[in-house]
Amino acid sequence: MSSRGPDANRKEPMVLKPVGIIHSPYKTMDEAPFQGRFSEETAELEIYEEYTQALKDVEKDRFIIVLYWGHLGNRDVLQTITPWGPEIRGVFGCRSPSRPNPIAFCVVELLKREGNRLVVRGLDAVDGSEILDIKPYSSKIDSIPDARIGWFEERSQQSQGFSSDTEVHLDKDENT
Amino acid sequence: MSSRGPDANRKEPMVLKPVGIIHSPYKTMDEAPFQGRFSEETAELEIYEEYTQALKDVEKDRFIIVLYWGHLGNRDVLQTITPWGPEIRGVFGCRSPSRPNPIAFCVVELLKREGNRLVVRGLDAVDGSEILDIKPYSSKIDSIPDARIGWFEERSQQSQGFSSDTEVHLDKDENT
Repeated sequence: MSSRGPDANRKEPMVLKPVGIIHSPYKTMDEAPFQGRFSEETAELEIYEEYTQALKDVEKDRFIIVLYWGHLGNRDVLQTITPWGPEIRGVFGCRSPSRPNPIAFCVVELLKREGNRLVVRGLDAVDGSEILDIKPYSSKIDSIPDARIGWFEERSQQSQGFSSDTEVHLDKDENT
Repeated sequence: MSSRGPDANRKEPMVLKPVGIIHSPYKTMDEAPFQGRFSEETAELEIYEEYTQALKDVEKDRFIIVLYWGHLGNRDVLQTITPWGPEIRGVFGCRSPSRPNPIAFCVVELLKREGNRLVVRGLDAVDGSEILDIKPYSSKIDSIPDARIGWFEERSQQSQGFSSDTEVHLDKDENT
């Protein structure tokens, strides 16, 4: 029983507009870290000129949330083997770049703003990724201490040697 | 000088697919809290059947990130007056639902999973909002202690009586 209807609540199609582009040291997904937070590398967020007004006050933040389009992800994948494998995970249960809507989420440290360019530390995006949104990070609403990804805790936190996500295509609905 | 090109890196248009729908107690934006984290209300995330496989392992998480489409936001607004007014803020510098890509981000507590329905606490979405993505929340990568929204700290944390965002349309580029 689904409530899915003919988009009754939607005013317009859900088409995203790129608001900027990421300049990062990672040319491929294999070069990018699994999670940017564990990296000291810096990257640059270039916001397109037509969105300059939206940047007002951004420079006052120390941490920002970056949403970007994971253009290298596979949108048809519903389950995957993560770098922490070998078990199969649902994509809503892991942080794989492959998912129905490849909107990547990363919390980064804002080092400086130079006009329309934001220099940040801890971004995991591949060079050339398109920016969808920037939001200020607030510990009051965004920080949960001691929240763990359930299955991840069940495993050793050592990578098992899987170099990146391995996509899994299943035909039947497992409903697990 | 912009690096904007003819979408050279994009494999396909950035069109989002709704993966589910939110059943929440808030019928209008005025009823919804500014941030769900301060609310004890529960809501239900109904994931459409074709995405069931993607839910594998979600039930092991205590906190999840919900990305949903803020269909009531105004996509043409670049600056706004927040409920903490009266100053004008850039939308990338605040959490207004109005922004070029109205992708709302909320960290919620997962109370239980019943098939394709996730019961959560702390969601700020209006009833009928479409779900774009669910990701497991991990304190290791997503929690920053003591990160504050710069301009917010400069003000009293009391609401100034603005009941919701007031949109500001500016003609000239302020580049602030």
